[in-house]
Amino acid sequence: MNKSRLEAFSDGVFAIIITIMVLELKVPVGTSWDVLKPLMPVFGSYVLSFVFIAIYWVNHHHLMHTLKNVNSRVMWANMHLLFWLSLIPFVTGWMGVNNFDKVTVAVYGCVPILSGIAFTILTNEICRTYKEQTKLTKAIAKSNVKGIWSTILYAAAIPCALYIHPLLAAVLFISVSVMWIIPSKDIERALNDD
Amino acid sequence: MNKSRLEAFSDGVFAIIITIMVLELKVPVGTSWDVLKPLMPVFGSYVLSFVFIAIYWVNHHHLMHTLKNVNSRVMWANMHLLFWLSLIPFVTGWMGVNNFDKVTVAVYGCVPILSGIAFTILTNEICRTYKEQTKLTKAIAKSNVKGIWSTILYAAAIPCALYIHPLLAAVLFISVSVMWIIPSKDIERALNDD
Amino acid sequence: MNKSRLEAFSDGVFAIIITIMVLELKVPVGTSWDVLKPLMPVFGSYVLSFVFIAIYWVNHHHLMHTLKNVNSRVMWANMHLLFWLSLIPFVTGWMGVNNFDKVTVAVYGCVPILSGIAFTILTNEICRTYKEQTKLTKAIAKSNVKGIWSTILYAAAIPCALYIHPLLAAVLFISVSVMWIIPSKDIERALNDD
Amino acid sequence: MNKSRLEAFSDGVFAIIITIMVLELKVPVGTSWDVLKPLMPVFGSYVLSFVFIAIYWVNHHHLMHTLKNVNSRVMWANMHLLFWLSLIPFVTGWMGVNNFDKVTVAVYGCVPILSGIAFTILTNEICRTYKEQTKLTKAIAKSNVKGIWSTILYAAAIPCALYIHPLLAAVLFISVSVMWIIPSKDIERALNDD
Repeated sequence: MNKSRLEAFSDGVFAIIITIMVLELKVPVGTSWDVLKPLMPVFGSYVLSFVFIAIYWVNHHHLMHTLKNVNSRVMWANMHLLFWLSLIPFVTGWMGVNNFDKVTVAVYGCVPILSGIAFTILTNEICRTYKEQTKLTKAIAKSNVKGIWSTILYAAAIPCALYIHPLLAAVLFISVSVMWIIPSKDIERALNDD
Repeated sequence: MNKSRLEAFSDGVFAIIITIMVLELKVPVGTSWDVLKPLMPVFGSYVLSFVFIAIYWVNHHHLMHTLKNVNSRVMWANMHLLFWLSLIPFVTGWMGVNNFDKVTVAVYGCVPILSGIAFTILTNEICRTYKEQTKLTKAIAKSNVKGIWSTILYAAAIPCALYIHPLLAAVLFISVSVMWIIPSKDIERALNDD
Repeated sequence: MNKSRLEAFSDGVFAIIITIMVLELKVPVGTSWDVLKPLMPVFGSYVLSFVFIAIYWVNHHHLMHTLKNVNSRVMWANMHLLFWLSLIPFVTGWMGVNNFDKVTVAVYGCVPILSGIAFTILTNEICRTYKEQTKLTKAIAKSNVKGIWSTILYAAAIPCALYIHPLLAAVLFISVSVMWIIPSKDIERALNDD
Repeated sequence: MNKSRLEAFSDGVFAIIITIMVLELKVPVGTSWDVLKPLMPVFGSYVLSFVFIAIYWVNHHHLMHTLKNVNSRVMWANMHLLFWLSLIPFVTGWMGVNNFDKVTVAVYGCVPILSGIAFTILTNEICRTYKEQTKLTKAIAKSNVKGIWSTILYAAAIPCALYIHPLLAAVLFISVSVMWIIPSKDIERALNDD
């Protein structure tokens, strides 16, 4: 059982999710600033979600790199992750067209939590296939901790959006993203060492 | 003739089918519960079909894994399968926007029957390329039997939807899905043994 | 320069073209036969184009299989082919929603002609990279002749649609398709012999 | 760390971008010339952008061919490029439906500038991984110079569109495209020499 198809299928889904979000930027008739203005929040939510999906792709790439054999459990854990990610275009569009309204920001925050849980499950499922502790498994475990912290921050963003201000939630979303932009340096190093 | 392009093309089609279904979840303007409520059946039908396509992908992955040489017959049997699967987004959307109306559930049930027949044809076409009985061909034959049973259950779901209750049909759909979630363990084992 | 990315990119485009056509089947609200009836010609045109794209994919698969080195000329000849094929969803939809009106059938017929010419150019570009006559180059040349005949038949379909009856043109389209369903058996045989 | 997934994901995104642009050609009801006429500028902008994306794909293909090891920096530089390219369908559609209005042409011109900068960053990031000057690095550097010139021409096109005539800007866009249609012959030669 090799992993090339699992990667190819996941790449296809990632590529489609990241690209169809742009369809929510409906082409307006008219060329004045007034027709572009209502698109600004939609564009802002697009940028946020593009970075979010990009981070997931980079980490998925690193994680899959460590995988040796594919089994049914890994395949379904991966499908579970892709399911939550596939909801990103919807929540992104909803948040965008409603100008970052607090309810939409709170709902948007749920998807990263569920994706984060799914990613943790996938990581654990992959770690199960390793017999012994190596640099690599330690690096994965460390990145898993980062994942759990992100999930907690996302969970904190929901009450922030609802009871304080949606902007505070957006700041939390962005800070989690920044934390992940330099992904799994440890995994990279561990893979090079092996 | 190697199979990598057949897999890559199929992966592309699977990835697009599973992802464009989410476009049927039209982004609503407004943030109250009332604007989300009509989307609930659409979301329900999306989940059902996501799992359905995921099962097909996992089984397609297993089946293709056993394939050695690609010929025109296999390519066209595969195209035939992809054709029926490509109708899933339409019937899913129709069932969703009409709130699981009995007619739409019955029509939805037709696509899995036709996909099931197409999958059986593809399996047979691939088995033809094997000369001798092995653990693998036995495992494939066994999974084929499961496929025929699923088709019968789907066929039974149609009169259930029309004359008893659409919910009963949905229960039948879900039970077939559960039956397949642990896919082809035998094929996995047979491949590892070889 | 290897050909894997050329194949992967083409597979992606083929997969998207074949799948987005189904989006033209707009999901209707209502469950009576009356809401499905106007979709029938759209569905008919979808089936026609699905088979058309499938034939191109199978032949592209065979042709690329014979390719050894990729250069800029081959890449651009391939892009040219993909451009004409990318117009298929538009002409398919236009023919479908206008119930196979003679003008739309004639316009539909133009795309296969231009795709046919593009495919011939691509074939010639690939043949240029061969130094000597082999079984394979003969098989490709033979398939090229079939391509030229198809183009002539498609060209004949346009006046048929405009001045006799759109149905006659559709019959011509279908007969070309049937002629290609068993693709390049000679190429398959020549590749196996090599 | 191998580059196959980076290529596969990029190919997916390129394939989707190039294909979803055709969805902006909305299928009209009616078969007279009058219903097709308003689509002509949309079609024109589609052709322009198809060629633009095709050029980027060909150059991306050449550039990636020279890459040996993938690291996080290269992955993010690539994501950055894909982000700007993903805006092409929107600006193409906007320019098309507004009949090449001067404001839309100027905005359209911004995307190639930003993509050009992103491509230069990606090239530099890849060059960093080379220790010594070879024919290849010289060829890449040369193509980089061409990239900087293109960016300058695109930048010049914006005031042309706004203050002189949109058509002049279109001529500049087309001349940059022609300059790139024969891509990186030097890279091709350098790769063959190695």
